[in-house]
Amino acid sequence: MQENCGVTTNFRLPGPTPLPPAVLQAMQREMIPHRGSGLNELYTSILKRAREIHRTDGDVLLWPASGSAGWEIAVVNLLSPGDPVLCTVIGDFGDRFAKVAEAFRLEVRRLDLPWGQALTPDKLKSQMERNPEVKAVFLTHNETSTGVTNPLPDLAKVVRDQGALVVVDAVSSAAGLPLLMDEWGLDFVLSGSQKAWMCPPGLTIVGVGPRAWDAYQRSTYPRFFWDLGAAKDYALKGMTPTTPPLTLFYAFDAALDLILDEGLENVWRRHARLGERTRRGIKELGLSLFEDEAFASNTVTAVAVPEGLTAKQITQAMKRDHDVVVAGGQGHLSEAMIRIGHMGWCDEADVEGCLEALSSVLAELGAERRVVSGVA
Amino acid sequence: MQENCGVTTNFRLPGPTPLPPAVLQAMQREMIPHRGSGLNELYTSILKRAREIHRTDGDVLLWPASGSAGWEIAVVNLLSPGDPVLCTVIGDFGDRFAKVAEAFRLEVRRLDLPWGQALTPDKLKSQMERNPEVKAVFLTHNETSTGVTNPLPDLAKVVRDQGALVVVDAVSSAAGLPLLMDEWGLDFVLSGSQKAWMCPPGLTIVGVGPRAWDAYQRSTYPRFFWDLGAAKDYALKGMTPTTPPLTLFYAFDAALDLILDEGLENVWRRHARLGERTRRGIKELGLSLFEDEAFASNTVTAVAVPEGLTAKQITQAMKRDHDVVVAGGQGHLSEAMIRIGHMGWCDEADVEGCLEALSSVLAELGAERRVVSGVA
Repeated sequence: MQENCGVTTNFRLPGPTPLPPAVLQAMQREMIPHRGSGLNELYTSILKRAREIHRTDGDVLLWPASGSAGWEIAVVNLLSPGDPVLCTVIGDFGDRFAKVAEAFRLEVRRLDLPWGQALTPDKLKSQMERNPEVKAVFLTHNETSTGVTNPLPDLAKVVRDQGALVVVDAVSSAAGLPLLMDEWGLDFVLSGSQKAWMCPPGLTIVGVGPRAWDAYQRSTYPRFFWDLGAAKDYALKGMTPTTPPLTLFYAFDAALDLILDEGLENVWRRHARLGERTRRGIKELGLSLFEDEAFASNTVTAVAVPEGLTAKQITQAMKRDHDVVVAGGQGHLSEAMIRIGHMGWCDEADVEGCLEALSSVLAELGAERRVVSGVA
Repeated sequence: MQENCGVTTNFRLPGPTPLPPAVLQAMQREMIPHRGSGLNELYTSILKRAREIHRTDGDVLLWPASGSAGWEIAVVNLLSPGDPVLCTVIGDFGDRFAKVAEAFRLEVRRLDLPWGQALTPDKLKSQMERNPEVKAVFLTHNETSTGVTNPLPDLAKVVRDQGALVVVDAVSSAAGLPLLMDEWGLDFVLSGSQKAWMCPPGLTIVGVGPRAWDAYQRSTYPRFFWDLGAAKDYALKGMTPTTPPLTLFYAFDAALDLILDEGLENVWRRHARLGERTRRGIKELGLSLFEDEAFASNTVTAVAVPEGLTAKQITQAMKRDHDVVVAGGQGHLSEAMIRIGHMGWCDEADVEGCLEALSSVLAELGAERRVVSGVA
């Protein structure tokens, strides 16, 4: 899908993801008055379609910011300093979410799982029972750093059964994987524009359900820029409290059309196919998945780096020799895995091209290794 | 300057301002890895040129956000809850800055002036003497809502003589009006990309001097996304703590080149000429400036609406009949003035065209009024 603008790179990071031509083109539009009817119609229409993609009758609101800001928006609007919360951590982004909670002086209880594993409802339930007073549970829907998709509907049910708020990092799932905010009982969902939304980074997208609005009424954090109530009051008039990031709105508008023209369920099916094809290809190459395959993500695949090689050797050779961009690992596992993004503007040919490049690079690197071993 | 992309509108809002073709074109670039050397070089180069435009050897840092976020960044990084601060208010944006300070539970002392007037060093000095304990003074360099430029160097001196921090809203001055951060002793300067920077909205630009860094060490606000220290640590490596808004970086990069290719002092001179030409034209039309002419801004001119007319009548007719977009007033003076932006990508022909349209509209509306009066 990479024929636009002379770009030949097969850009397979797990975000930012490549921009479709229609999204790039949309950003060629000049400025419009940010308090006029043009903006009002645009923003109203964007929010309507974003609600559809969140499968919610609640609110969706946008900020000019990065996905990580969504964590802060959750904390300062739904909680108060000292509130006990449970942070479930299955990878680097869950860990960062916990760090934000600590920075804002919540009383953080952590449930850490080995990276590559999913959180199961049983484990969550027993942890919840030991921490009955937590006011919110932070869940990662899709952990970008390990290629794991948590069983979110089941986890959300466990949390709600105990009365806590369900706060979900959906940065690398929203618009790519099924995410039924109302049906699954998610109270607060955050994501960023640069993943399956197929937009440049710079927009934080937040879904807010009725229980989150109740919590907002009780929250005592001082806040201004992230204030949910102000954002909603303005959104009802088709406006944002401060100047909106117009080009990113233009881009998001175009991307929403692409998603809904394809059909949201078709988008989910395409991601399922791409995930399945990637995993099959990885195994055909004799490689192992880093993640527990039962919970493997359909937006990003983490591949265990074969013994004797580093992630950097593989990613650099793929870029240098094949113009294919994939990522290494994160945190303490930066050299232990490579991660292939297959979300957003991505089709089977992109995945095939990526697998071919990987196959070729492994042969080269393996050959080099043998030569070096032989010499030694 | 409005021939790009088939746009014929003379877009003369005081922000967002029109995008030069080079800036629009820059946003056609595809995504790059946000943790790679390409981003490192781009961000390092952007910050170097942004420091040049701030005339500072201190730091300049960027966030994906709107200009208003700069107020919050100042508060949560330089102060602590309950700190006494002096908010000087000469218009709507000064008022909003004070509201942010109140939202964050600073102890706010206000110095309000009638809208249209500038703050003079004498008035500031006597207020400072009555409030010797304030830790920071919030100053508006250029008040977008009234077309007034405060005498910032003199005001900053008064504040520093008393030892308080000089925090400056330069949203509609930075990159358009002289702003000598180090020479004038400004500790913290905030602006937004969508004014004289000639970029789309979505970037917050912040200048931080040594006394601001000292204050940062003492600040006790909880913070994550706005943390100055994290932003600086990453900037030293050419990175941002969270995913950077790549297309806005591309745009900013192109705009910085335009500014520095023209020459910063030439940019200031052009704005001075445009301001002077606008004010002369307004007076030639028999209209009055809203603002005290001794402190009239060279980026935005506020024009008093003639008796018997409203701002809306004029702005709507200018758009409908001449495709010229200007703004009405803000806050309680929304119908009392129209505001003409002449900052960023703007030349003499744009100002002439705007004045001609205004002249024509006034004749039409005046004629209508006479007919209506005659009928009555």
